[in-house]
Amino acid sequence: MPQQPKQERAIQTRKEILRAAAVVFDQAGFAGASINRILAEANLTAGALYFHFKSKEDLARAVMTAQPDSILPWLSSEGLQRLVDITLVWAHQLQTDIVLRAGVRLTTEQGAFGVRDVAPYQDWSRIMADCLRVAVEKGELQAGIDPVELAEFVVEACTGMQTYSAVVSEDRADLVDRVIRMWRLMMPGIAVPTVIARTEVSPARARALLDAMTSAATMTPAHGTP
Amino acid sequence: MPQQPKQERAIQTRKEILRAAAVVFDQAGFAGASINRILAEANLTAGALYFHFKSKEDLARAVMTAQPDSILPWLSSEGLQRLVDITLVWAHQLQTDIVLRAGVRLTTEQGAFGVRDVAPYQDWSRIMADCLRVAVEKGELQAGIDPVELAEFVVEACTGMQTYSAVVSEDRADLVDRVIRMWRLMMPGIAVPTVIARTEVSPARARALLDAMTSAATMTPAHGTP
Repeated sequence: MPQQPKQERAIQTRKEILRAAAVVFDQAGFAGASINRILAEANLTAGALYFHFKSKEDLARAVMTAQPDSILPWLSSEGLQRLVDITLVWAHQLQTDIVLRAGVRLTTEQGAFGVRDVAPYQDWSRIMADCLRVAVEKGELQAGIDPVELAEFVVEACTGMQTYSAVVSEDRADLVDRVIRMWRLMMPGIAVPTVIARTEVSPARARALLDAMTSAATMTPAHGTP
Repeated sequence: MPQQPKQERAIQTRKEILRAAAVVFDQAGFAGASINRILAEANLTAGALYFHFKSKEDLARAVMTAQPDSILPWLSSEGLQRLVDITLVWAHQLQTDIVLRAGVRLTTEQGAFGVRDVAPYQDWSRIMADCLRVAVEKGELQAGIDPVELAEFVVEACTGMQTYSAVVSEDRADLVDRVIRMWRLMMPGIAVPTVIARTEVSPARARALLDAMTSAATMTPAHGTP
């Protein structure tokens, strides 16, 4: 398969462009970002970039929709606990993961630069609704809770929490606490008592998930070695 | 009191400047707005404007913090119903009230233009916490619900709902439905059963509140006539 290394290189290049774009979008916002600055950050030629993305707007869309990739591959929980874990990891990673942070910034600011892309909201809603469908099957939710409705509301609440947190605290330092507060307020109305009792929603849970991610990530380079 | 008419004129001028600024901010965002365009919209001289506001940023802050004035004076309900009413009227007025809409746009986009003003969030949180303190006194809330915590979460959720709604629907046409969904999901976890049963959270409630506002507003010019 002579194509394989070339494809892998293309995937790596695309990933590097996304990271470089995220760095520039995170610092400068959409309006302040330029293709030249992204090329300098990525140390690539314009040709390499335009092979993957046709415009700054196209790049912004890719960064916006890349958000779940920073979180989902690292989680093994199911149902309501998985939804809680997504929000905990999201809240924490938003302080450190540049692609996630730029994606969120672009998503909430997109109105300011004339883009209206529903995809990042709908992707998150779908992912969260999937968790809640499993929760329904497992009998975790109270009767009458609709997975799609609750998922959309959690996306809305997370959107607002990070906006509020970004204004009130440095680097959204209080966002994990806000997520925990949301679940404390929501749980009694949505989950059955046994599930409320066993679902972990705490700073300790957030730390454990992040430790697991960090050790998994440091093991990644070992892939492919004998 | 020879000062009175002058003061009243100053109040009127300030109000007119705010309205004109809101029109321009609503159309163009903070970055696209200019003092000249606001002056043209208000049909005023620069001197009149700078008597009230010292910069575009100062104007933006005033529009951001004027949000509650579009809602609170029209409501007579108390406790949890008052909080519900605020969110219903807010959701509806955001589609039509230009000062409110510009205030919300500037508040959520402020990061994009380098402003970080906590006041609009904190004002809303304080107003909502006041409603919830009355709700606690009236025995409307479940044990352990903290007015300040719940108020901040409602502000966060409303912030995210309008961001999501602005991207998904034209002129946030679905925002009232989103607010109603929030209360349907939250109520069982925060209010006692008798209060859940009697609290009105419906499109009909929203319409009734708006009708009352409209008839009160059309009566306003009658003030001062014999």
